[in-house]
Amino acid sequence: MEDIKELFELVPEDEIRGRISRFQERMVARGVDFSLILQNVDIFYFTGTLQKGYLCIPADREPLFLVQRDWRRAQQESPLNIEKMGSIKELLSFITSMGLSEKQRVGLELDVLPVTLFLRLQGFLGERDFVDVSADVLRCRARKSPFEIEQIKKSGKIVEHVLSTVREHCREGMAEVELDALLQAEGRKAGHQGWLRMRGLNQEMSNICLLAGKSAAFPSFGDTPLRGYGATHAIAQGASHRKIGRNEPIIIDYGGGYNGYTTDETRTFVIGRLDEEFERAYEVACRILQFCEDHAREGVNGRELYQQSVDIVSKYGLEEYFMGYGDGKVKFIGHGLGLEINEIPVIADGRDEILEEGMVFAFEPKFVFPDQGAVAVEVDYIVRKDGVERTAGFPTDIVYL
Amino acid sequence: MEDIKELFELVPEDEIRGRISRFQERMVARGVDFSLILQNVDIFYFTGTLQKGYLCIPADREPLFLVQRDWRRAQQESPLNIEKMGSIKELLSFITSMGLSEKQRVGLELDVLPVTLFLRLQGFLGERDFVDVSADVLRCRARKSPFEIEQIKKSGKIVEHVLSTVREHCREGMAEVELDALLQAEGRKAGHQGWLRMRGLNQEMSNICLLAGKSAAFPSFGDTPLRGYGATHAIAQGASHRKIGRNEPIIIDYGGGYNGYTTDETRTFVIGRLDEEFERAYEVACRILQFCEDHAREGVNGRELYQQSVDIVSKYGLEEYFMGYGDGKVKFIGHGLGLEINEIPVIADGRDEILEEGMVFAFEPKFVFPDQGAVAVEVDYIVRKDGVERTAGFPTDIVYL
Repeated sequence: MEDIKELFELVPEDEIRGRISRFQERMVARGVDFSLILQNVDIFYFTGTLQKGYLCIPADREPLFLVQRDWRRAQQESPLNIEKMGSIKELLSFITSMGLSEKQRVGLELDVLPVTLFLRLQGFLGERDFVDVSADVLRCRARKSPFEIEQIKKSGKIVEHVLSTVREHCREGMAEVELDALLQAEGRKAGHQGWLRMRGLNQEMSNICLLAGKSAAFPSFGDTPLRGYGATHAIAQGASHRKIGRNEPIIIDYGGGYNGYTTDETRTFVIGRLDEEFERAYEVACRILQFCEDHAREGVNGRELYQQSVDIVSKYGLEEYFMGYGDGKVKFIGHGLGLEINEIPVIADGRDEILEEGMVFAFEPKFVFPDQGAVAVEVDYIVRKDGVERTAGFPTDIVYL
Repeated sequence: MEDIKELFELVPEDEIRGRISRFQERMVARGVDFSLILQNVDIFYFTGTLQKGYLCIPADREPLFLVQRDWRRAQQESPLNIEKMGSIKELLSFITSMGLSEKQRVGLELDVLPVTLFLRLQGFLGERDFVDVSADVLRCRARKSPFEIEQIKKSGKIVEHVLSTVREHCREGMAEVELDALLQAEGRKAGHQGWLRMRGLNQEMSNICLLAGKSAAFPSFGDTPLRGYGATHAIAQGASHRKIGRNEPIIIDYGGGYNGYTTDETRTFVIGRLDEEFERAYEVACRILQFCEDHAREGVNGRELYQQSVDIVSKYGLEEYFMGYGDGKVKFIGHGLGLEINEIPVIADGRDEILEEGMVFAFEPKFVFPDQGAVAVEVDYIVRKDGVERTAGFPTDIVYL
């Protein structure tokens, strides 16, 4: 079997150890004796491998990764102790071998763990005090290390590249899905990992959401201001078969994906010219972006960033269109980024969220005009002590093609 | 707001009514008073729309779809009664308005419902007898209607198209991800909906799994014989950055997606020629396919199809390599297809599964040779009274480029 270290940039061992010990501190604070981690992204975060199994993290000793498949690969990718496990029926005997059989308080990711699997686990482990540690996992994941920020910047490079090829590919009269196809191919060729992840049931995430003209104003279920028709109502988001026209805003919301890490940026393009109403709203979006760049830093409360953005919008009389229209309005303007696209911090109405150094978030002032279309910009930022730093460098002006 | 019926081929009303009444028969048989359906694919199946909410299906009266977002779109797409619901706190009052408040036995999709959400539902509905109806939903979905088979055949056309363009795009020395990018773009331009769905936690599905030479023999977690390195160990499946070489099998496993419906076919390509060992194994794979075409029909047990396939493999002394190698072996040779890629019937070792007319399944004899590569073929079939019918027509021979 080939040496995987030659092929991939693996997560460094000290990085993994640091993540585990930060999580253990949280477990101790909550009186959790041991946790069983089973969601693939959380497993990747704590082990450095995406292989399938149960990661047992005791509060006070070394973790053990019980791998169902494939343990050979897991051993190459993760610095942790690994055992091969057949069925989850063997779980209790491993837990006993770790000296944990008498421990009562067990942490699980109850936000994603399905009931059927929970009941099976309960059957194998017996009646214990099961508690939800998903918020603790997500808090650990919120602050990114220098290694993680390096991956995020590489992810941002893919976004830069894809956005820079729009001029070459976009033509009047082509279907949204056609441009979507060409841009996704550009991203993949430039090293895109394949897809992005969004935590939770029913959370489906496309690498790209490309919406021209009134497509951007059509309602759908997503918790985002711009949704689109989709290629079918069975997808109900993103590009459709409608043709891209002249003099209408073309919104391209694209997410990079590199070594597990997601980025998420949006720009507005147009073939020809835009109506003054659109241009004026776009200017306000850029003012909000500038406000964020001037004010966001460690210690700032996300609640205030949201409120002050709304104040800017109000000054220009555009509240009605901000972050959606009517029932389609959403109550946030930013969200954390990392291994998943819906991480901490969420920058939202009435939500206290103190920015910490190393957090990474997408900030996305968007305006939707019913039956007409939208203008939108979205930039990813790394929180630093004294400000924010962009993860990538594509200009934020409207691009006239 | 635009009329969505002009854009999409919606699910016909009689189709929706039939699905609901078949599910109600199962509920009655199990003594379930009403079910609350919330997984997006199941909602799409029973309502005709993917919009977000809770579908309440009583055993003995009309269903009501409580839509959180977007009810305007849901109203256009679904023939069912729809109410706008804000928070799930309103659930009990809607259930009361339907005359169901005294009903005790409530069906839920416990195979996918996360514990946290289950506990919230329990909080709002009070202590009742919650039962898992996911198997009933999946049984309803297993037999496809003529409308569904039409969508599946259109999905198969996308596969045919994509496979037919391999000759044009594949070049010696290009990275797997580059060919992956070009083929995915071909699919998207030809109407691919965007992505495929696989039911369950951690189930990630790529539209394409493209593996050249020894990439196809590298182990990973997936419950499938061929996995691949992936572009990163954070994805750990599918195409990698390795170069496609001459005289090695190039496996392309591609899934069409049309109007919600998934197909899943595999072919083996090669630039140059293949070693005799590979060619001989591929011949055996084709014999197994032929056996399936000659014997599968309504009433046949999947357990026997699996066992007889293994018997053919044994006759040629290839057991060691069949459906994976060593720890990477899987115990199935076929799986159902529909709105998700892991449906009923599963054609597997020791699993009784009587084929019924209208079931659709992928049948995939594959051989993996450690450190060398794989040969593989996979064809999708519709079960008929007197045999099986292919969903698409791309030839099954090795394609020499």
